Amino acid sequence: MTEQSLLNPKREPSLAGIERAAAKVAEILPRTPLLPLEVDGVTIWCKAECLQPIGAFKIRGGWHRLSDLDDEQRKRGVVAFSSGNHAQGVAWAAKRLGMHATIVMPEDAPQSKMENTRALGAKLVTYDRMNGSREELAQELAAETGATVVPSFDDPWVVEGQGSCGLELREQIIAQTGLEADHIVACCGGGGLASGIALSNPDARITVAEPEGWDDMRRSLELGRIVPVEDNPPPTKCDALQTLKVAPITFEILKERGAKGIAVTSGEVEQAMRLAFEKLHLCVEPGGAVALAAVISGKAKASSQTAVTLSGGNVDRQLFAEILAR
Amino acid sequence: MTEQSLLNPKREPSLAGIERAAAKVAEILPRTPLLPLEVDGVTIWCKAECLQPIGAFKIRGGWHRLSDLDDEQRKRGVVAFSSGNHAQGVAWAAKRLGMHATIVMPEDAPQSKMENTRALGAKLVTYDRMNGSREELAQELAAETGATVVPSFDDPWVVEGQGSCGLELREQIIAQTGLEADHIVACCGGGGLASGIALSNPDARITVAEPEGWDDMRRSLELGRIVPVEDNPPPTKCDALQTLKVAPITFEILKERGAKGIAVTSGEVEQAMRLAFEKLHLCVEPGGAVALAAVISGKAKASSQTAVTLSGGNVDRQLFAEILAR
Repeated sequence: MTEQSLLNPKREPSLAGIERAAAKVAEILPRTPLLPLEVDGVTIWCKAECLQPIGAFKIRGGWHRLSDLDDEQRKRGVVAFSSGNHAQGVAWAAKRLGMHATIVMPEDAPQSKMENTRALGAKLVTYDRMNGSREELAQELAAETGATVVPSFDDPWVVEGQGSCGLELREQIIAQTGLEADHIVACCGGGGLASGIALSNPDARITVAEPEGWDDMRRSLELGRIVPVEDNPPPTKCDALQTLKVAPITFEILKERGAKGIAVTSGEVEQAMRLAFEKLHLCVEPGGAVALAAVISGKAKASSQTAVTLSGGNVDRQLFAEILAR
Repeated sequence: MTEQSLLNPKREPSLAGIERAAAKVAEILPRTPLLPLEVDGVTIWCKAECLQPIGAFKIRGGWHRLSDLDDEQRKRGVVAFSSGNHAQGVAWAAKRLGMHATIVMPEDAPQSKMENTRALGAKLVTYDRMNGSREELAQELAAETGATVVPSFDDPWVVEGQGSCGLELREQIIAQTGLEADHIVACCGGGGLASGIALSNPDARITVAEPEGWDDMRRSLELGRIVPVEDNPPPTKCDALQTLKVAPITFEILKERGAKGIAVTSGEVEQAMRLAFEKLHLCVEPGGAVALAAVISGKAKASSQTAVTLSGGNVDRQLFAEILAR
């Protein structure tokens, strides 16, 4: 793929693009570790993305997208919509590049995510998660200023950026075991991370994990076409995964790879958070623990070549304390 | 130093020995990350040893010591005394080498540390921390079976093994900043980690951090001679640092390097634990947070070339939840 075609916003994300993203990420971010964890006598591998400077893998897509903007685009800034982790990823990249960032966040986003996004210098605009359209609000804000909209998953750069996590994971599991991952379970909201991992691990079986009631990617993959979250989804602590509908760019990659979806309960998520605390000494947020929850529940079959993403750690202190104490 | 002299139990720990330990450690353990953390506008560097498979740096000394035992010694097993982290380090190494390990632990050690040590296949023997002599008990047990006693810090292998943490830290801070660490603050019980770091970072200023009332290394360094913890020390949550007296092997290294000691309060320790949770998404145990506590309290001066050890993460869930919720 030529440099020119890599800058086309309508292009498909590609392995070449992921390799370029990974090289850019490696220049500024140390690798997150791939940690072994014994589950029922089998050692699986956990990619600890909660150790990124913003506490989530979203820094990858934010950096790949923003650092590819030209001088004129950089002057006009960016607008993003996010429940918090993509917000911080974009705000972090904007700060580093000296750009202006406006972030549209649901008014019920975790306090810590809002505060961290503000602390990175971004301007926050809130909306009602269940009624407002964050996409429309972001488009309006961007139209006013000529800013570039950076979607949280429906974008080739963002998928490629998140794919750099998969490329690292691939190299790390080979370094530690001598073999490729045969099964990767990824946390899934819009599917940016999962589809990026699928592209960068062409021989692995891919499973996406979602919270019960928000398992629209699972249902879409079963039906072979995109369906939204059903009406009145249940409340969930997995704020990072409350995506109402996935996008063709992520869905088609996962569909083509024969990916399957798994829905996990809140009890399984909390058990995964406690296990990550006790055995790995990591603070994982609910949405970042669904892949591990899928494995420890037995819903996703695990082997010594299975890897899971621990995709974020931005959870409010009180909530984490409550879950630990249970 | 020759291979023969490196096997003499009366020898001094050396940089050559640390380099050998680091090479052995690198064969079996992925490097723990050195994570940036902003404190009052200055980015310091945190060596996340709580991410070791046993949740603490003690795996290094345990592995270096046990893997150097000869076939005859391996058959007779090892005895160690520890409040929990050294226990797990020795038990982990023994399991991997197919050896028998007996661990002497204080009866008030954290439940999780006892359970983890047992889960690694070691035999546990408990004693009363304030009245019993763990050294004598360990010597008696060893005399019965001909096992090798593995002290938790008073041993050249153990100091060298912990020093591998300092060697990694040195390489990592150079890789990330282009410069050496100019100041390293290490958590200190008996001083194995601190003295190993001092040997492997010959140009850095070394500070040891201890809990208030258990700051015998600080007092010893001020006086220029080893003094024990004073009578009736206050209760502390830093179980890993409740050493009643340091040893010449660690003290002399730190004294020669002009190391200084800092005592931190329990409030400062808890604040450091909350900061590590919120900004690094790590679960750090009280004793593993004293170095960070020394920096955030302002007692240890920090620059962009300052590094601290987050030396362990083995803390019971309920206690961590209580500290988070405060």
